[in-house]
Amino acid sequence: MTNPVLVEVTRGDLVESVHRGAIAIADASGALTLALGDVAAPVYSRSSLKPMQAIPLVESGAAEAFGLGDEEIALACASHSGEPMHTERVELWLGRIGLSESDLACGAHPSRFEPVAEAMIRARLAPTRIFNNCSGKHTGFLTVARHWDVATEGYEHVDHPVQVAVAAALMDLTGARELKFGIDGCAAPNFATSLAEFATAAARMATPGALPAPRDAATARIIGAMIRHPELMSGTGRACATLIRACNGQVAVKTGAEGFFGAWIPAKGLGVAIKIDDGAGRASETAMAAVLDQLGLLGSDPRARALLCASVLNTRGAIVGERHPSAALR
Amino acid sequence: MTNPVLVEVTRGDLVESVHRGAIAIADASGALTLALGDVAAPVYSRSSLKPMQAIPLVESGAAEAFGLGDEEIALACASHSGEPMHTERVELWLGRIGLSESDLACGAHPSRFEPVAEAMIRARLAPTRIFNNCSGKHTGFLTVARHWDVATEGYEHVDHPVQVAVAAALMDLTGARELKFGIDGCAAPNFATSLAEFATAAARMATPGALPAPRDAATARIIGAMIRHPELMSGTGRACATLIRACNGQVAVKTGAEGFFGAWIPAKGLGVAIKIDDGAGRASETAMAAVLDQLGLLGSDPRARALLCASVLNTRGAIVGERHPSAALR
Repeated sequence: MTNPVLVEVTRGDLVESVHRGAIAIADASGALTLALGDVAAPVYSRSSLKPMQAIPLVESGAAEAFGLGDEEIALACASHSGEPMHTERVELWLGRIGLSESDLACGAHPSRFEPVAEAMIRARLAPTRIFNNCSGKHTGFLTVARHWDVATEGYEHVDHPVQVAVAAALMDLTGARELKFGIDGCAAPNFATSLAEFATAAARMATPGALPAPRDAATARIIGAMIRHPELMSGTGRACATLIRACNGQVAVKTGAEGFFGAWIPAKGLGVAIKIDDGAGRASETAMAAVLDQLGLLGSDPRARALLCASVLNTRGAIVGERHPSAALR
Repeated sequence: MTNPVLVEVTRGDLVESVHRGAIAIADASGALTLALGDVAAPVYSRSSLKPMQAIPLVESGAAEAFGLGDEEIALACASHSGEPMHTERVELWLGRIGLSESDLACGAHPSRFEPVAEAMIRARLAPTRIFNNCSGKHTGFLTVARHWDVATEGYEHVDHPVQVAVAAALMDLTGARELKFGIDGCAAPNFATSLAEFATAAARMATPGALPAPRDAATARIIGAMIRHPELMSGTGRACATLIRACNGQVAVKTGAEGFFGAWIPAKGLGVAIKIDDGAGRASETAMAAVLDQLGLLGSDPRARALLCASVLNTRGAIVGERHPSAALR
């Protein structure tokens, strides 16, 4: 099955590049209100999976036991930019569970927030693992391990109780009987689902009463934390923060590497899963903005509208083309 | 027409992302020895066009009049990394034609060579236009304008004599009667050709005797300069330099933005044009390595083989997947 073109990038009078992909929108019953392209093939949702991966943190009582607030829950769902608001909170949180940076299994990478990255270059400071965009997710995993009093070492292995709990929650949300997995950029397992399954899982998380207690309360808290702290779950000026703010409290969205994007829409009881075939984040951002716009949620915020239809600039700052949704998405 | 998948990116047991595209390989007669996908649609070759854009510089006698060597010719074809070997030569060259950085129409961007970029951040030095990866091409345009004693201001406009000469050479090489153009990242016009036309033009440039004098000598000098100075026309560790060195003097290759890649193969009298639909450079590099390997030219250099089949690493440095040619390219 060849997926449709979802996003076009123009230059002058020509379409210079195109991005194909697939989109599923589902409700909590699993009914698909949109199935564009192949929504049945297994795909990695990468960091878009983080809200599901945070379920054991809240549902187990670990978050409550360690007195975590919405800010830490948002960080557990974050691909953060490594700004002080992120790194300082993760460091304090690690201290609260009696652990430190060296307990994180993710690798280090520079801050994705340019002023911080440049300041660290000037100060000749090497980034620590806390700067990894997934450090909140990892601290969440460690918090569950501490709460259950199981080994923290090896928490990133697929057979560790924390990862087994993540997989169990995901199988329950999707109805999948088995889950393939790959190793994510942060060394944790990333479980594959179809887009239909992911969208259904997101809808079940987003729809009050769709899941039995205490899971319904846990997922409501996770989605609420993302909506209340858009910059903590992404970063200053990032697409997730821009889209969540533009939708005015009605939607949580979470980007993932290689062109994945997920949305949780309590206001409509819907879940969304987008995968760009070629892995381009620029295309997944435009596709998600288009979906939210079609659902009447995007609003008029100019930064969000600029994700929907983005100018292509040259090095002189002149507009030489644009990135926009294809006819299939309009 | 839907182009075939040329490159796959795996993670664990799954193909995570795919890149579609088209490839033309032609000889100097215009006969296509390979036509994979749509090779008739107009596409921008972006920086892969630089060897064609350098033709007036050599053919007009401007290069000779200003005493330019192979090093400057290679820089005219370069998307350079902004290393001292590039920026110092461009600055000296500008001085030789009585001009300076302020005459360049391209915008500034940071060096693409990390040690230089970091050193400039530490020294709080803003990049100049000389650091633009296209500054050699622009200095080449200015050199022609000086040689012809026409206005240097406005040399980047499509109706300036230098750009008119570029378009005329390209129409002559391709047989195209008109050329659409867009504005490139560096503010110069970029002319669109089909992949078949680009590959034919490259083959004519690469095949001794295929073009009338003095164009045959000019194109031979351009291709020779790229082959003799792989790092000057790209940068330390860059794909172009790696592939040219691996092919041991038999091939010049030149990458372009948005997934274009061109090759000039004097040893076989062939030209190659590759366009990845979605604009991904990672895929164009793998596709070009695959084409050169199929032609028996790639050799055994491990860095070049690593472009053909590249490991996907996580932030811990572990191998979690790979990028490789699809069945259509094997």
